[in-house]
Amino acid sequence: MANINYQQLTRTFQRLSRFSHLSSIAGWDMAAMMPPGGSQARGEALAELGVLQHQILTDKNVANGLEAAQQENLSDDERANLNEMARAYHQAALLPESLVEAKSLAGSRCEHAWRTQRKNNDWQGFAPNLKEVVRLSREEANIRAEASGGSRYDALLDLYEPGMTSSRLDVLFADLKSWLPDLLQTVVDKQASRKLINPQGPFPTEAQRQLGLETMTLLGFDFNGGRLDVSTHPFCGGVPEDVRITTRYDENDLLSALFGVIHETGHARYEQNLPRQWAGQPIAHARSMGVHESQSLFFEMQLGRSAAFLKHLLPKIQQHFGSQPAFSLDNFIAWSQTVERGFIRVDADEVSYPAHVILRYEIERALIDGQIEVDDIPALWDEKMQQYLGLSTEGNYRNGCMQDIHWTDGGFGYFPSYTLGAMYAAQLFQAARKALPDLDQNLNDGNFSPLFGWLQQNVWQHGSRFSTSELITHATGEDLNSRYFREHLTARYL
Amino acid sequence: MANINYQQLTRTFQRLSRFSHLSSIAGWDMAAMMPPGGSQARGEALAELGVLQHQILTDKNVANGLEAAQQENLSDDERANLNEMARAYHQAALLPESLVEAKSLAGSRCEHAWRTQRKNNDWQGFAPNLKEVVRLSREEANIRAEASGGSRYDALLDLYEPGMTSSRLDVLFADLKSWLPDLLQTVVDKQASRKLINPQGPFPTEAQRQLGLETMTLLGFDFNGGRLDVSTHPFCGGVPEDVRITTRYDENDLLSALFGVIHETGHARYEQNLPRQWAGQPIAHARSMGVHESQSLFFEMQLGRSAAFLKHLLPKIQQHFGSQPAFSLDNFIAWSQTVERGFIRVDADEVSYPAHVILRYEIERALIDGQIEVDDIPALWDEKMQQYLGLSTEGNYRNGCMQDIHWTDGGFGYFPSYTLGAMYAAQLFQAARKALPDLDQNLNDGNFSPLFGWLQQNVWQHGSRFSTSELITHATGEDLNSRYFREHLTARYL
Repeated sequence: MANINYQQLTRTFQRLSRFSHLSSIAGWDMAAMMPPGGSQARGEALAELGVLQHQILTDKNVANGLEAAQQENLSDDERANLNEMARAYHQAALLPESLVEAKSLAGSRCEHAWRTQRKNNDWQGFAPNLKEVVRLSREEANIRAEASGGSRYDALLDLYEPGMTSSRLDVLFADLKSWLPDLLQTVVDKQASRKLINPQGPFPTEAQRQLGLETMTLLGFDFNGGRLDVSTHPFCGGVPEDVRITTRYDENDLLSALFGVIHETGHARYEQNLPRQWAGQPIAHARSMGVHESQSLFFEMQLGRSAAFLKHLLPKIQQHFGSQPAFSLDNFIAWSQTVERGFIRVDADEVSYPAHVILRYEIERALIDGQIEVDDIPALWDEKMQQYLGLSTEGNYRNGCMQDIHWTDGGFGYFPSYTLGAMYAAQLFQAARKALPDLDQNLNDGNFSPLFGWLQQNVWQHGSRFSTSELITHATGEDLNSRYFREHLTARYL
Repeated sequence: MANINYQQLTRTFQRLSRFSHLSSIAGWDMAAMMPPGGSQARGEALAELGVLQHQILTDKNVANGLEAAQQENLSDDERANLNEMARAYHQAALLPESLVEAKSLAGSRCEHAWRTQRKNNDWQGFAPNLKEVVRLSREEANIRAEASGGSRYDALLDLYEPGMTSSRLDVLFADLKSWLPDLLQTVVDKQASRKLINPQGPFPTEAQRQLGLETMTLLGFDFNGGRLDVSTHPFCGGVPEDVRITTRYDENDLLSALFGVIHETGHARYEQNLPRQWAGQPIAHARSMGVHESQSLFFEMQLGRSAAFLKHLLPKIQQHFGSQPAFSLDNFIAWSQTVERGFIRVDADEVSYPAHVILRYEIERALIDGQIEVDDIPALWDEKMQQYLGLSTEGNYRNGCMQDIHWTDGGFGYFPSYTLGAMYAAQLFQAARKALPDLDQNLNDGNFSPLFGWLQQNVWQHGSRFSTSELITHATGEDLNSRYFREHLTARYL
């Protein structure tokens, strides 16, 4: 066989993928089903599998196979798959096992304590744990940066958004910072004069769940290969053949769970439509976290909060919760598109969201690159919140620098994915509109399949065949350009 | 360290136990949660883990360690654990991997096809698949019998009920056959004169579920370490720290799901109370399938269908489904203790159940030992059903020899566990009554904890420290004796 080493590698990666299947399902179960008493045994079982996966992936046979396969006669897709294999191998093999273990332990400890400390606004208790996590993350970043030749922060960023660099992010974010604050102020001023009627609850959980399921159906979720359940922190998990999304219900809040479900359905459709002919291989994975967030935000923001979609959503809401003055079409659309400055990232609308991300990006980059220390975070957070959103978080750690889970277990470099996703989403939507002349008419008629077909064609089916830059360029005719995000916000909110 | 080989083995078995944790949870998920589209990927993932577990268990280091540890300085418990390790090793190592794989494939194929064939009463379609399963099971039995020196059937029986032999079963079952048919006839005649009022449904699923949860609480199920869900075939799964039981609801049938839940709660309490100090080691496992069934039948039959328990169950039923004439205490008790000859084992009452088991035992033993062939089964089934229960199954394969799942994937040797369990349960209950002078008064008062405490003390906490025979002798003062089962049936039904 001409590509015997490559074939051997595909078997190893298929095996790894099968173990990942079990850890994904067990992870979903842990969040959505498991009673508290199962926690320790489950943690140990997952850690044992994690060690095994790390051993299989970093085995010297993999290293040798990767080198030998480079010389083999491979198709373009096989070569792309081989590159993704090599990427996974090098990411894992770079770190000594002792560091992996220390990071995992420090992260678990910090995250676990944080759940209580955040409630108690206890920065003093949190800071020492975070310092340990930062220390280990810097060590990781050091090792990765030495191997890549880039900066320490870039080495972490690359784990989530391969190919992205902070110098490129700086340009993108500088552009956002040049126009977004003014736009935000203008929208807030404009909306201040609206006379909105707020929907009156309660909105019973079971009816919200039914509404969520119907909305998922409307959005093309395949229930033959997935489920909707409840967890404290909503997420999209499982495996492409069996995607598990979760939400949480608040009986006083109609939109939170609903738009959460729409968001996760975007992630889910990407997963459900990844290339099946490559199932089990790295090339079949989603391209990056930024591209993943682009799909969820495409569903939640680009499509989900458009007037055309809200028009088709409203009758379903009325069917479950009856009629009330807030459910006039105009009021419902206006209410769904409310823009407000707030403390909490996950509650932010799409206009103010980037400010939350840029603030975190600037702090975490300085932290990893060693320009600031953990003790500097609260003052810096307050300063930037004042600057970007006009809000003070002095002494308010809970709703300030302690609000997110990411840093607690060392997820430095993830935050930019959200705003990259928002920009990709706007650019993709604009490209779809150009490619599909009847798109707006279709959406207005409640016919969403042409739009989903375009995503399938241009994003989903490619998995990791192309780099993010190639994927976006093939789909939209140019590399990432923040212009489309600006145009989208301007068109919707001004 | 004086027992370095033993210590090394405990680490290997703990690792195996962690992988079993993941496969148990993924197996539960498959039955209770997974959408159909996940089936193939899940099957492959579980098979991959199964291969890994088999490799770890049959590694030559385990063989060498087992031999070396024999010479080490071990406590009684450690030695018992070592024996269980050796048992697991030899069970796995005896079979060539090709046979394990062929059995697994033939079993999956036969079981899968059976689901449709049973509905269609299609013996002609089923027989060839079953022949292949029987052929491979005989091969397995041959290999195991050569190693053990016993009969082929005994070698399979030992997998489920270590230490039990068919010659001992023959004596036990001969005894049952000498008095049970007459007892059954007498009970049926006696009950024929009762004027029973049948409860009128429907009994909504959600109310049945609530009733099930409350009954589990009454029976001491620990919800901090377990759940109740729905599956087509009810079972008790998960891990001791997180026990997952399932049931299925029929809105026209009040008792089926309820007594199913009580049955599975018996299994669950055994699992939840296995010795935690040995968690992850073979000694912490349930003793045998017969002992496991003894706990479920203790809960379902000995306790669950007793007048004392039914008296405390009835108010909960009335709370959920209101009052109706069938819910007078006398009628409810009489109705819950109805004895009827029927075709279906899983629907059988405790008086007619042993006939179903003995029939299967006699057929499967002859089949494995080579005295009959698959083609002989239907006629033999009909003959024995006529003889033991006075019912003909001629041409009725669906409700005859095709009704059970066990043989489809080669589970020969399991059926005796049910009747062994019923006999153990009666003997244990009698011993508890002797040890606890206030037991009947306690039960009448709805105070079940002394009884559960006795089970904890005498069965649950021992895991696999003792052989079944030792366990039963310690708990009851004598080895298995069918007399207690007879006394129980006589007292309750005559």
